[in-house]
Amino acid sequence: MNKIAVVMGSTSDMPVMQDAIDIIKEFGLEVEVDIVSAHRTPEKLFDFSKNAHTRGISVIIAGAGGAAHLPGMVASMSPLPVIGVPVKSSNSIDGWDSVLSILQMPGGVPVATVALNGAKNAGLLAVQIIGSANSEVLNRMLAYKEGLKAKVIEGAKSVKQ
Amino acid sequence: MNKIAVVMGSTSDMPVMQDAIDIIKEFGLEVEVDIVSAHRTPEKLFDFSKNAHTRGISVIIAGAGGAAHLPGMVASMSPLPVIGVPVKSSNSIDGWDSVLSILQMPGGVPVATVALNGAKNAGLLAVQIIGSANSEVLNRMLAYKEGLKAKVIEGAKSVKQ
Amino acid sequence: MNKIAVVMGSTSDMPVMQDAIDIIKEFGLEVEVDIVSAHRTPEKLFDFSKNAHTRGISVIIAGAGGAAHLPGMVASMSPLPVIGVPVKSSNSIDGWDSVLSILQMPGGVPVATVALNGAKNAGLLAVQIIGSANSEVLNRMLAYKEGLKAKVIEGAKSVKQ
Amino acid sequence: MNKIAVVMGSTSDMPVMQDAIDIIKEFGLEVEVDIVSAHRTPEKLFDFSKNAHTRGISVIIAGAGGAAHLPGMVASMSPLPVIGVPVKSSNSIDGWDSVLSILQMPGGVPVATVALNGAKNAGLLAVQIIGSANSEVLNRMLAYKEGLKAKVIEGAKSVKQ
Amino acid sequence: MNKIAVVMGSTSDMPVMQDAIDIIKEFGLEVEVDIVSAHRTPEKLFDFSKNAHTRGISVIIAGAGGAAHLPGMVASMSPLPVIGVPVKSSNSIDGWDSVLSILQMPGGVPVATVALNGAKNAGLLAVQIIGSANSEVLNRMLAYKEGLKAKVIEGAKSVKQ
Amino acid sequence: MNKIAVVMGSTSDMPVMQDAIDIIKEFGLEVEVDIVSAHRTPEKLFDFSKNAHTRGISVIIAGAGGAAHLPGMVASMSPLPVIGVPVKSSNSIDGWDSVLSILQMPGGVPVATVALNGAKNAGLLAVQIIGSANSEVLNRMLAYKEGLKAKVIEGAKSVKQ
Amino acid sequence: MNKIAVVMGSTSDMPVMQDAIDIIKEFGLEVEVDIVSAHRTPEKLFDFSKNAHTRGISVIIAGAGGAAHLPGMVASMSPLPVIGVPVKSSNSIDGWDSVLSILQMPGGVPVATVALNGAKNAGLLAVQIIGSANSEVLNRMLAYKEGLKAKVIEGAKSVKQ
Amino acid sequence: MNKIAVVMGSTSDMPVMQDAIDIIKEFGLEVEVDIVSAHRTPEKLFDFSKNAHTRGISVIIAGAGGAAHLPGMVASMSPLPVIGVPVKSSNSIDGWDSVLSILQMPGGVPVATVALNGAKNAGLLAVQIIGSANSEVLNRMLAYKEGLKAKVIEGAKSVKQ
Repeated sequence: MNKIAVVMGSTSDMPVMQDAIDIIKEFGLEVEVDIVSAHRTPEKLFDFSKNAHTRGISVIIAGAGGAAHLPGMVASMSPLPVIGVPVKSSNSIDGWDSVLSILQMPGGVPVATVALNGAKNAGLLAVQIIGSANSEVLNRMLAYKEGLKAKVIEGAKSVKQ
Repeated sequence: MNKIAVVMGSTSDMPVMQDAIDIIKEFGLEVEVDIVSAHRTPEKLFDFSKNAHTRGISVIIAGAGGAAHLPGMVASMSPLPVIGVPVKSSNSIDGWDSVLSILQMPGGVPVATVALNGAKNAGLLAVQIIGSANSEVLNRMLAYKEGLKAKVIEGAKSVKQ
Repeated sequence: MNKIAVVMGSTSDMPVMQDAIDIIKEFGLEVEVDIVSAHRTPEKLFDFSKNAHTRGISVIIAGAGGAAHLPGMVASMSPLPVIGVPVKSSNSIDGWDSVLSILQMPGGVPVATVALNGAKNAGLLAVQIIGSANSEVLNRMLAYKEGLKAKVIEGAKSVKQ
Repeated sequence: MNKIAVVMGSTSDMPVMQDAIDIIKEFGLEVEVDIVSAHRTPEKLFDFSKNAHTRGISVIIAGAGGAAHLPGMVASMSPLPVIGVPVKSSNSIDGWDSVLSILQMPGGVPVATVALNGAKNAGLLAVQIIGSANSEVLNRMLAYKEGLKAKVIEGAKSVKQ
Repeated sequence: MNKIAVVMGSTSDMPVMQDAIDIIKEFGLEVEVDIVSAHRTPEKLFDFSKNAHTRGISVIIAGAGGAAHLPGMVASMSPLPVIGVPVKSSNSIDGWDSVLSILQMPGGVPVATVALNGAKNAGLLAVQIIGSANSEVLNRMLAYKEGLKAKVIEGAKSVKQ
Repeated sequence: MNKIAVVMGSTSDMPVMQDAIDIIKEFGLEVEVDIVSAHRTPEKLFDFSKNAHTRGISVIIAGAGGAAHLPGMVASMSPLPVIGVPVKSSNSIDGWDSVLSILQMPGGVPVATVALNGAKNAGLLAVQIIGSANSEVLNRMLAYKEGLKAKVIEGAKSVKQ
Repeated sequence: MNKIAVVMGSTSDMPVMQDAIDIIKEFGLEVEVDIVSAHRTPEKLFDFSKNAHTRGISVIIAGAGGAAHLPGMVASMSPLPVIGVPVKSSNSIDGWDSVLSILQMPGGVPVATVALNGAKNAGLLAVQIIGSANSEVLNRMLAYKEGLKAKVIEGAKSVKQ
Repeated sequence: MNKIAVVMGSTSDMPVMQDAIDIIKEFGLEVEVDIVSAHRTPEKLFDFSKNAHTRGISVIIAGAGGAAHLPGMVASMSPLPVIGVPVKSSNSIDGWDSVLSILQMPGGVPVATVALNGAKNAGLLAVQIIGSANSEVLNRMLAYKEGLKAKVIEGAKSVKQ
């Protein structure tokens, strides 16, 4: 129940996507990780996308670089909220390619896009989605925000002149 | 319960944001609409953001143009998932300003960004978020996807040569 | 034999894609036209892509706008050369989205990309591909190039001062 | 009296923002430094912005990266001139995100934006603002400009060939 | 005393720059308007820039389009704060040219840049600069901000559903 | 018969273009390599482009950086399909120059453009073009695609958590 | 002697390029106009470029849109100074394609690039080039600059408030 | 007679601009080098620009980075052809700032812009300008072009496979 799936187009996306996995675990939620390439394993893409919601998964995070089609293709076949992480790959044109390939989805098929390489925020967004119907997780998110604040307050001490 | 809030920075954003409201109603969900300007009504922004989750709201959709700070500022204060709609305003630099102001949030404070003027997709994403914990809404989303398919199949007939 | 397929994501792409159909017919080659939406008819996308080469099709032209996933997804499943036409749709970010979504394919899965709205060139490229193994079509291409030249020479007369 | 406040979103902005602090001190003016995060310490942001003008501060310099909301949010609540410094953070899309998030403010709420990482110029601008009503500071600015000139004249000697 | 100068490169910039003039007058401050072209009247540029501070001018607003050199050249010769307005001229490359020509000034010579065509904000910024040393003007700015708020609150009534 | 020509503007493009040569050889097809500079050896450009199709060449791959004119100029004179590889050279403006110089060809003269530095995909596209009229090569392409799939499936094992 | 050639890729460039012709005639210099398409009349391109300097032409102005190869290809074969005019054609990606295709020439083969659609400046630059070795033309240029100044001074009268 | 002036905004531009100086000397022409900062030494800028043509200078090359105003300001005051070199400085936004600040000059005041960091081409263009009225220099340029060709032909031998 309330499992979050994290998929990516290539093992080379793992260093970026690990941030999503880590933050989900930090919140005590269950995460499932897999490589699903829209361009090299289209059958696996179909199978994964069509069935994720029948296997107890609530939210899908998909990361990819360049002409990043994975998040949009998952979204085309799954009724679940899909979060897209634009990964800045080598030979990317400054990341614009993955950002626009994920963000500019046509009407009818949304992808919740986060910042370039923003896997941590993808994880947090997945947690917030679960928290929107689960008050315990919502409370953990409120506590997390207090923690962010505390770190800034602490950091501010070092710059006072 | 399961109410979706749609807020925007200015009444001039309404023609774009109406698409979000319409699609949410089409799915039979409750929607609350308001103007909240990050730059001109900061107190209302605080009040709205800090309390939305206590008033039965599950998801927040925020649209704004130019240096669009509304979605990110709501996200900074609410534990709920926040969906950002970049609106292409007059004097925008081709929409890049609102896209980047909403998308490139720092680690810790995600905004689920959709396409430029993509309010319809913002509404669908909100429905999917509610559907991720509500099987009846999930089923309506599955039916919606079947409807999209049917329209394409129908349209295809007209181009056969 | 030597049939060219022209597919597009939506009937709204037809005004742009018609140029490809026209030029192919001008060269006396056979063309098949269909609407295949990567995001709304994924099953049709699979069926079309996996079987095109078994139905006498030699080249596939695919046009789409925004986060344009159709050309790349067809290329992921077909062994045939796939030509991608970036269509400048409404709400596009100046066409950059469709250009980059089609051009920046990962290693292993090429899409032959033409200019923004460049459907005519997509048609010509398909003809050239067939001509590369068919000397009659090659000769027609040589004659076509002579025709381009003649038109410029004629036009030049009007500007002499 | 005539104090300049320098605030930034994160301690990681300090290496860039130090240039503002240094140049202000070089002009013999008083500077106050603090970390105020729009996204992680919204209450501190409110408190700082609403009260700065009541504490003897004349000008505010605010630096931030990515979807940089700090300068604009300070400007929304303070009647003082606010100078924004776009900081090029890691994972920035070449700095365009912070530039546009700060520059493209809506009518009614200006932010005086300087170049990417241009904290030194932010400091000089703050000095010029104070100098516009203080002839002693204005004279120091005139002398500073003479110094810039002298350095160029000196440097020119080394390239004469 | 406390006069604001508004200069622009061409009479064709006047429709944009009028917004600056209007808002300054709305605040009851004195404004002086002139055409000064960096590229066509360099002597006038020198004369204006070197002497403005000796004629009772406190702040300079300079608007220009394309390779916009006027704001930066005025800033190179005046010790006063210079506010630059990037004007989107015909044949502009989407306004990027004037934005970058004004914003990216080298260290030592700041220009306070506002949004593309953001002349109204340039006027407000000039008022804020004068208000930073003049409590009466500061109070008018506080009142102006209350007015912005009131208009949003009023507009919000029309969208409640 | 069925030979593929790989040309490039400079020996400095060789590290990128080698990927095209390697993949063509991996498919057992014949490749011819040469340096042809549109800007420094225009006569060689003419001679090469006008005659390639008479020497048993079926497809031409042309790579160049900056204001990359080689692919388009070859395409202007050859009736064969021409594949363009935008090379990211030093002093390039992020690769945009070579991408746009190759992609945005006028109606009548197509260039099949691949991703920035995408020479491997250029080679694969050339193989697909030959395979479109050669079932043995087509079968090798089908097998290649199975190989891509297998590698992803294998890689997926390493990330399961 | 001292003739200026104005060439362009298509008759559709004539409305833009006419400005170059007009200003050259205004200065009493001789101008020759022709259509030379790099992509459709490569032989004419060769003939024109290789021989222009033997026919009394001193400077060449070349205008083209999209993947604009004409100016660079003329420059590759002529020893004369070549001025390139990026023309904003339909289906251009905001003019960036022609700007970068003309500007970013490799070392060894310069093109003197002017602004997007800047044919008037191309004409003036050609006049300046001739004037650099012809004192009578140089004097006409000095007078022209005085005329620019006079027009601005006159225009300034209308905005004084 | 026929002297070429090379000026730049700062000694930090020297590593880029040295290429212009070297190629001019290689052609046996006289070169004068100086630092002239539009923003820090405006009087020197005026003096240099207004008098260059009276001191035997035929062509001016001006290099600058960021909001690069030097080439355009020299062009505003000199009747000579001015060649602008956009220098990619630190804190540049990928070089776009200097490119657009130099290229997009208004009608009436041309700058002959070369590629980013393209000082070598600026030098060659200056030589071509002198060669357009000096047959000996023109012949050296023809010989130079033969040399470029020979180098490519030689390099081509190394890649034949």
